[in-house]
Amino acid sequence: MATSHFASLTQDYPWISPSTPLITSAPMRLISTVPLTLAVSRAGGIGFLGGGTDVSNLSSLLHEATQFLSSSPIPNVPEKILPIGVGVIVWGASLPSTISAIQNSKLKPAAVWLFAPENSTDLVTWSTEVRKASNNLTKIWIQVGTVQSAFEAARTCNPDVLVVQGSDAGGHGLVQSSSIISFLPEVYDVLKAQGYGHIPLVAAGGIVDGRGTAAAVILGASGISMGTRFLASTEAEISNGYQNAVLHASDGGVSTKRSTVYDRLRGTTGWPSTYDGRGILNDSFFDEQNGMNEAENRRLYEEAVKKGDLGWGKDGKGARMTTYAGTGVGLIREVRRAGEIVNEVAEEAQKFLSRS
Amino acid sequence: MATSHFASLTQDYPWISPSTPLITSAPMRLISTVPLTLAVSRAGGIGFLGGGTDVSNLSSLLHEATQFLSSSPIPNVPEKILPIGVGVIVWGASLPSTISAIQNSKLKPAAVWLFAPENSTDLVTWSTEVRKASNNLTKIWIQVGTVQSAFEAARTCNPDVLVVQGSDAGGHGLVQSSSIISFLPEVYDVLKAQGYGHIPLVAAGGIVDGRGTAAAVILGASGISMGTRFLASTEAEISNGYQNAVLHASDGGVSTKRSTVYDRLRGTTGWPSTYDGRGILNDSFFDEQNGMNEAENRRLYEEAVKKGDLGWGKDGKGARMTTYAGTGVGLIREVRRAGEIVNEVAEEAQKFLSRS
Repeated sequence: MATSHFASLTQDYPWISPSTPLITSAPMRLISTVPLTLAVSRAGGIGFLGGGTDVSNLSSLLHEATQFLSSSPIPNVPEKILPIGVGVIVWGASLPSTISAIQNSKLKPAAVWLFAPENSTDLVTWSTEVRKASNNLTKIWIQVGTVQSAFEAARTCNPDVLVVQGSDAGGHGLVQSSSIISFLPEVYDVLKAQGYGHIPLVAAGGIVDGRGTAAAVILGASGISMGTRFLASTEAEISNGYQNAVLHASDGGVSTKRSTVYDRLRGTTGWPSTYDGRGILNDSFFDEQNGMNEAENRRLYEEAVKKGDLGWGKDGKGARMTTYAGTGVGLIREVRRAGEIVNEVAEEAQKFLSRS
Repeated sequence: MATSHFASLTQDYPWISPSTPLITSAPMRLISTVPLTLAVSRAGGIGFLGGGTDVSNLSSLLHEATQFLSSSPIPNVPEKILPIGVGVIVWGASLPSTISAIQNSKLKPAAVWLFAPENSTDLVTWSTEVRKASNNLTKIWIQVGTVQSAFEAARTCNPDVLVVQGSDAGGHGLVQSSSIISFLPEVYDVLKAQGYGHIPLVAAGGIVDGRGTAAAVILGASGISMGTRFLASTEAEISNGYQNAVLHASDGGVSTKRSTVYDRLRGTTGWPSTYDGRGILNDSFFDEQNGMNEAENRRLYEEAVKKGDLGWGKDGKGARMTTYAGTGVGLIREVRRAGEIVNEVAEEAQKFLSRS
């Protein structure tokens, strides 16, 4: 098991709970803003801001977080560190803007989480530049979806953490991949055999509670990241329509699916063709399946956008909006404070891991 | 955790190892014959014969197993029981032939594992008839791929075990599903809430060793089933070409994929459209992706069939044959005796589950 990494993680991020697996919140674009991110870190995890492809406001977000913390500090945070991370979508985010925001921030973000480069060599550039801009204070987390890319990232970037994302994850991920059930152990074994066993693995995809967390640790992870679970948090920046859809969905392998339809309808272009998005299926998806042409579907989508929460339907009918979420939706029934989610998931996981 | 079911499983199948999770071998058509099946049961698990859609020789298989056991008994087997199971593909297998084989067998198979009915009501018919034909000695295992079908099977058939198959599984399964990371806990919770928490769950899909097994137990299973791992067993009835392909494949989420192409090329019709098959990708798949028409692809497939092991290629080139396997292929590097696989997986799992 990867418990040997708990010590190195606690060293790198001294505010995290030392005796439970590391719990992180995924960098969900527009949703993982400062309140959610800080709440997760405050509870002994690491929250990640959703930088997405637009990091133009990153400076002000880092400043906002710094202000909050100056009046309400989190204990055990090293002097020059901001105890949160920033996630970026590499194919689209501006490296100069990211570097500039890091340089201008009095406190350096604890980590930058890199996802979806156009070319894998971009990860080398980003890793090098972020480390330089932060005087090596900011750690590099790289998200991967195949064993090959995990090995390549380890070899070329020496990341501080590898985020191992499986097929159950919500939002964007590889069109083709396996779940962490086999992916995580295979990465763990390959990295260990190749001399990269020192890199902690953070598992993502389908994990919503202590059971999935403990399972991930047994499979080789030192920590986990949750997206969907935090969609149903008090602090998430999310519309009621979207959040209610997450709460009401059940049978996660049936109610969610990987597809490109939602990006096409909302005009999100730029994702490499090896990626798609997992979300809760609704009329936009089913109408396309039934032969509706994309122009018409897009027209209906744009109307739905104007309807606010009603874009997610009413009484179970008429939902068309993008509702990215993972297969764990069926296990999520209530909105909770992010800090409570972190504590409960970590404690439940630790109970499983320390049973005799 | 589902450890409370260990006791009831040991009661129903008294030869199984009492202090480790139940390890079973999946009923792989043509591959899971008597030697593999008996070896797994002999090692304290439960082996399942691959009845498939053709149960015309089931009588002779049960007789063969009975003969082996009369000269070399497995300890702790109840008097009238054959300590193996039989898996059937319900949309195609003959119920009368199955019933007849059970009635004519001196010893009744410990379980019949039902998979892929055309209509879910067929499961009720099969469950009822098998129980009747065996004087209630043969247990009913039902394999499911959605939470809804798990609940419906529980409600209508009162199965003795539910096999919960996730998206990583090799061979046939649902086109659309999630992995056991979220599927297993969701089934566990729903069944418990609905009063069916007494039904043990056996997890399948992506599990090849003690890590996956322990993870499955934490997620809610009382046992597991492996297919791919047993493809690489001494006793499996499998060609060298197929077995070598399993040993050499890595990056299971990249080297395997769910597809209908192999069934189409080899003329296997009859599977409901909600099913496809996960296998190791080779030229048959890639040529179709690149636009080859099906008639030409089928012609090449039929030539490959005649080549024996060379149908799986040479020096990494020219493989065209069906090579059903799960995402766990990357973790499988050597052929082992099935009994050793059972023992090692069970012991490794138990180490994880009893750590303090």
